[in-house]
Amino acid sequence: MVIAIDIGGTFVKIGLVNNAEIIVKTAIKSHPKIVFQNTIKDIEVTINNLLKSHSVAQRDIEGIGIGFPGLVDSIKMKVLSTNKKYDDSLAFNFIDWAKETYNTSVFLENDARMALLGEWQYGAGKGIDNIAMLTFGTGVGSATIINGKLLIGKHFQAGNLGGHFTINVNGALCTCGNLGCVEAEASTWKLGELLKADPRYTDSLIEGNELDFESLFKYAEEGGELSLSVRNHCLEVWSAGVINQIHAYDPELIILGGGVMKSADVIIPFIKNNVKKHAWTPWGDIKIIQSKIPNRSALLGAYYLVTKNLKN
Amino acid sequence: MVIAIDIGGTFVKIGLVNNAEIIVKTAIKSHPKIVFQNTIKDIEVTINNLLKSHSVAQRDIEGIGIGFPGLVDSIKMKVLSTNKKYDDSLAFNFIDWAKETYNTSVFLENDARMALLGEWQYGAGKGIDNIAMLTFGTGVGSATIINGKLLIGKHFQAGNLGGHFTINVNGALCTCGNLGCVEAEASTWKLGELLKADPRYTDSLIEGNELDFESLFKYAEEGGELSLSVRNHCLEVWSAGVINQIHAYDPELIILGGGVMKSADVIIPFIKNNVKKHAWTPWGDIKIIQSKIPNRSALLGAYYLVTKNLKN
Repeated sequence: MVIAIDIGGTFVKIGLVNNAEIIVKTAIKSHPKIVFQNTIKDIEVTINNLLKSHSVAQRDIEGIGIGFPGLVDSIKMKVLSTNKKYDDSLAFNFIDWAKETYNTSVFLENDARMALLGEWQYGAGKGIDNIAMLTFGTGVGSATIINGKLLIGKHFQAGNLGGHFTINVNGALCTCGNLGCVEAEASTWKLGELLKADPRYTDSLIEGNELDFESLFKYAEEGGELSLSVRNHCLEVWSAGVINQIHAYDPELIILGGGVMKSADVIIPFIKNNVKKHAWTPWGDIKIIQSKIPNRSALLGAYYLVTKNLKN
Repeated sequence: MVIAIDIGGTFVKIGLVNNAEIIVKTAIKSHPKIVFQNTIKDIEVTINNLLKSHSVAQRDIEGIGIGFPGLVDSIKMKVLSTNKKYDDSLAFNFIDWAKETYNTSVFLENDARMALLGEWQYGAGKGIDNIAMLTFGTGVGSATIINGKLLIGKHFQAGNLGGHFTINVNGALCTCGNLGCVEAEASTWKLGELLKADPRYTDSLIEGNELDFESLFKYAEEGGELSLSVRNHCLEVWSAGVINQIHAYDPELIILGGGVMKSADVIIPFIKNNVKKHAWTPWGDIKIIQSKIPNRSALLGAYYLVTKNLKN
């Protein structure tokens, strides 16, 4: 039995996974600004309940896999860098925690890489060994598999910063410190600013509302001028983000995930069309699809990583 | 003895290389719009002269290495895609040509990759196994080494399109078909357009001149307002291009090459400063240096590729 954990900005998902099947999963509320030790305590309580209710003894735990929203040293199992999420986790010793609490091994990896591992093994990427994935949500995450291996790089960050490629050299400052990042130009954390920056905002029907992309796409569909223009701006930004992934990593397949993909029926055709017009792929058309197991990919990726590492 | 060839937009460099030493090298004028077969004929004449004048017999030729300015299949030794340079070379059979003309093997690779191989083995990248290189010239080329291996990708284009990452989502159409590429926003082929698009151009001292970057930097230094503003625009674009390379490939070292680097004394400090302010490198400062053997890197890279492949 593998304990799979996906630490997100609002929720932490926790599951028990056996033979690539999620036996049970649950989610607990979290907050990336509270002391990380408290998040871990909450995770422990939840794990203990799951183990008890499913009669799993400690000796049956093969290992723990954790997806983390930041840059991760997946050899030393340490958080290397965060971007306004769980900033104090850099000091946390995951190996000691797993050993002392469950007498088992832990495998830590970036959350987007975990999701991609899951999609690659069990979802949208099955059988395809060159994939770039982008997740559009609060921020924009990314991960890349080249020749059947996660791209890692010298300092564990290759493939992971697709949300932080500059796509607007004259653009806004990102939380990461860079200018005009994909995520600083179009992401859920940016959406409010984008709307408010438009002179039409004050007289618009959406003034004062906390809008997410799902509602923005709805308003745009219904003919809201401001919503349509902000939506189209975001679609252009995401298209450029996807083209840069293609030009950077030369994949066969792009998988798009994240909460924003609730509007995949609009997003995927728009991006496909843009890529067809502008990407340099002399070999043919690249596949662009949405994630197939969005609610399970990171947990199954964590399961895959644990079992693969234990085999080696 | 290895015959090393670097096919460029204006010149083709040809050298004889033995034990990593260039015995002799020469350059012949070329034109990327003429029939490729004619370029090859000119190359043959030059090779034959070099072989004769240095008393090299055909049986002493170990192989031929060719750097080509386009996307290259380095397994089948074919040109896959060009961008307004030697467009008819896609039909050319390099293997047959080398066999029939010199009874030897040929190894074809993208020109930026050849230059990086040369810098890595014999120049600015010695001993460093994670490098991204950008060449600023007529266009903007790139290549990447991760963990001591050229990044190739599924269709031979990973690492090669650093000049064609969108860095301005609202930007100009590139010759490659993409919008707002590094090269479409700041490169030698773009320079004239950048100057003419400025309202100050008509009354400026440089009106009507064919300016290259070397003169632009000189005019800027002397206080030319228009030159300074276009120069600074280009420096910002190139900085974003470098930051995107760092965020994409996670190297320890950036090597900058190409004709534009004649002004390295201004370019390198500007880019370093920008990278220090904006790149996400929690592990420390990345090295950014200019190519050390700009006139020899591609030929020595070709030599390295030939001898390495013959050993395997």
